[in-house]
Amino acid sequence: MYSIEVRDHIMIAHSLPRPVFGPAQNLHGATFVVDAAFFTRDLDDDGLAVDIGRATTVLSEVLAPLNYQNLDTLDLFRGKVTTTEVIARHLFEALAVRVRAGDLGTGSGRICRLRITLHESHAARGAYEADL
Amino acid sequence: MYSIEVRDHIMIAHSLPRPVFGPAQNLHGATFVVDAAFFTRDLDDDGLAVDIGRATTVLSEVLAPLNYQNLDTLDLFRGKVTTTEVIARHLFEALAVRVRAGDLGTGSGRICRLRITLHESHAARGAYEADL
Amino acid sequence: MYSIEVRDHIMIAHSLPRPVFGPAQNLHGATFVVDAAFFTRDLDDDGLAVDIGRATTVLSEVLAPLNYQNLDTLDLFRGKVTTTEVIARHLFEALAVRVRAGDLGTGSGRICRLRITLHESHAARGAYEADL
Amino acid sequence: MYSIEVRDHIMIAHSLPRPVFGPAQNLHGATFVVDAAFFTRDLDDDGLAVDIGRATTVLSEVLAPLNYQNLDTLDLFRGKVTTTEVIARHLFEALAVRVRAGDLGTGSGRICRLRITLHESHAARGAYEADL
Amino acid sequence: MYSIEVRDHIMIAHSLPRPVFGPAQNLHGATFVVDAAFFTRDLDDDGLAVDIGRATTVLSEVLAPLNYQNLDTLDLFRGKVTTTEVIARHLFEALAVRVRAGDLGTGSGRICRLRITLHESHAARGAYEADL
Amino acid sequence: MYSIEVRDHIMIAHSLPRPVFGPAQNLHGATFVVDAAFFTRDLDDDGLAVDIGRATTVLSEVLAPLNYQNLDTLDLFRGKVTTTEVIARHLFEALAVRVRAGDLGTGSGRICRLRITLHESHAARGAYEADL
Repeated sequence: MYSIEVRDHIMIAHSLPRPVFGPAQNLHGATFVVDAAFFTRDLDDDGLAVDIGRATTVLSEVLAPLNYQNLDTLDLFRGKVTTTEVIARHLFEALAVRVRAGDLGTGSGRICRLRITLHESHAARGAYEADL
Repeated sequence: MYSIEVRDHIMIAHSLPRPVFGPAQNLHGATFVVDAAFFTRDLDDDGLAVDIGRATTVLSEVLAPLNYQNLDTLDLFRGKVTTTEVIARHLFEALAVRVRAGDLGTGSGRICRLRITLHESHAARGAYEADL
Repeated sequence: MYSIEVRDHIMIAHSLPRPVFGPAQNLHGATFVVDAAFFTRDLDDDGLAVDIGRATTVLSEVLAPLNYQNLDTLDLFRGKVTTTEVIARHLFEALAVRVRAGDLGTGSGRICRLRITLHESHAARGAYEADL
Repeated sequence: MYSIEVRDHIMIAHSLPRPVFGPAQNLHGATFVVDAAFFTRDLDDDGLAVDIGRATTVLSEVLAPLNYQNLDTLDLFRGKVTTTEVIARHLFEALAVRVRAGDLGTGSGRICRLRITLHESHAARGAYEADL
Repeated sequence: MYSIEVRDHIMIAHSLPRPVFGPAQNLHGATFVVDAAFFTRDLDDDGLAVDIGRATTVLSEVLAPLNYQNLDTLDLFRGKVTTTEVIARHLFEALAVRVRAGDLGTGSGRICRLRITLHESHAARGAYEADL
Repeated sequence: MYSIEVRDHIMIAHSLPRPVFGPAQNLHGATFVVDAAFFTRDLDDDGLAVDIGRATTVLSEVLAPLNYQNLDTLDLFRGKVTTTEVIARHLFEALAVRVRAGDLGTGSGRICRLRITLHESHAARGAYEADL
């Protein structure tokens, strides 16, 4: 299996209003350094799983609606707790839509798996990975 | 598959008394930066695979008996060669006990896979990963 | 010059309500991975510039009032724009108080310089460094 | 599954002469920081998946023919576009030959899977992973 | 002293045609991950040493003429050996021109020192730092 | 000021037998990832502060007597507490001898400052920096 993984980041505010989260029930925030990995079983005629430039652009576009936002106020996450896992899954689904729309280039149809990793600090990260 | 991965470290002495290890047959030591990844197929009602705070606490507790020790003198490793792989497997089993005991919170039963990664330098690491 | 540098992190919400900040005028947030460096000209009788364990504890204590907070609501920053630089300076002053109080151990009087570095993403960081 | 992963790097020139690559059609270059991961299901009597020293040596030998070269002029890649993915696959095959030749030590026969990861910058990487 | 440091990268080909460079006399290449640090003695009314967004943009513009190029063919480096040190100095001078032109914003006049660091691998880097 | 910084590592055992060190009074160990920075005011005719290959070789040679050793048993450190700071200073002096002996190449005489940084984990490091 081939993979290409590109990195970007977002800076968001949110609260996690459930007792299990202790002090993180407060309105606070995070920088999420986001890695998006695209998996393919073979390469196209240009030797590509996915073009790194295009993958970087699409990741940036998928992140834009969250960047510099307070997630507590977004319709997108109404009724949800915006844990690292939930955001990872949201980004997975948003990228999957772009893959299915062919926005990752001629090789889009070849992409069979995605993994989104959110680094929330130097000591913790969450991920969601699944087949398309 | 979701995953949460948390980081801590230990500083230990040991020797690797077999010819294959060359100079590492000497009593020497290592900092192991340890990543523990917990995998789940779905999230609980709080949007969690595993609570990062609790995962960090349990990892720290599992590491404590090894930290600042000479592994050559621990009953735990009697008759074993304490390679990076062997320590990774030991930590996997110790964490698995904690998962089965429910110490990772209400979501413990949901954890279906663990991965322990030990970074022994900027240029080498070992891991053990398996289903629970 | 000797130095000891230890790392911790905080997760905060804030807004930067000035036109120059563009989208960062919104309420958003950040993980700041914080490095605190303590400089000394010589070592004490135990071979220490500063004890790493104690430095880690004091850094954690200095960060605690900011962690999981919305900086826009803290008296501490009333009337200030909480840029990375301003937070770095605040943490410098808070650490300096602890150094002067002797909380860094018998070597506290020996500490002649501090540097606080805040990593706000994988691609940007700010710092404040000065003599005590 | 156990794994041992070791790191080295190469510095190469190449061009990617297809329209999809935009400015990378020019002759340019890259540092590839290369991670090679060796997977085994169990450990040998010395507690090893693979000896880290030996893995490091063999990785270095496999990289040597590419290091400080212009890939456009190597017979090895004649008629190929030397994308990150193509180089990862090349290195995978070259390492697989060494594994099959027993060059990874007495445990060579135990190695059941390899992964080659090429970091081309702080923000992008490619990989090839497969069973042997 | 305050500082803001931002990161970007370039991918270039070059040769180092002097005997001291051994195999690097060949045409080869490098990814340089570039950190640019801007130092100021105080902050402006917005709490800024330099705006991170603007610093990132200007760094990108200064890197653009080198990115995806064969440095051996650029007039810019005619008669020079394009070592890491020489490129760092070139980027320092190019950034200094932008600082003096006021392109770093209202705080440009406040910038009193620059440091350019080029990471050429996970194990080596070069820098040039000086007062303006 | 120019600088070149290269990285290597050592794996050692030691104990810190003074009350201030708490559990680190035990025989334990560390991986020290070591960065050595060489500073010069100008470049030689080859565009070099110091040749990276040569700097890497000399750093490796200076580290060799410590690597895979129990520092408690080395004459070198008799009567000393082998803190991170003490080891950093030792390596500084050992490198300084090599610089003065001309072992860093024709540019050795130009080297005016050294910095040795020892990373003992992902969260702590010590350094010694001084003019030659």
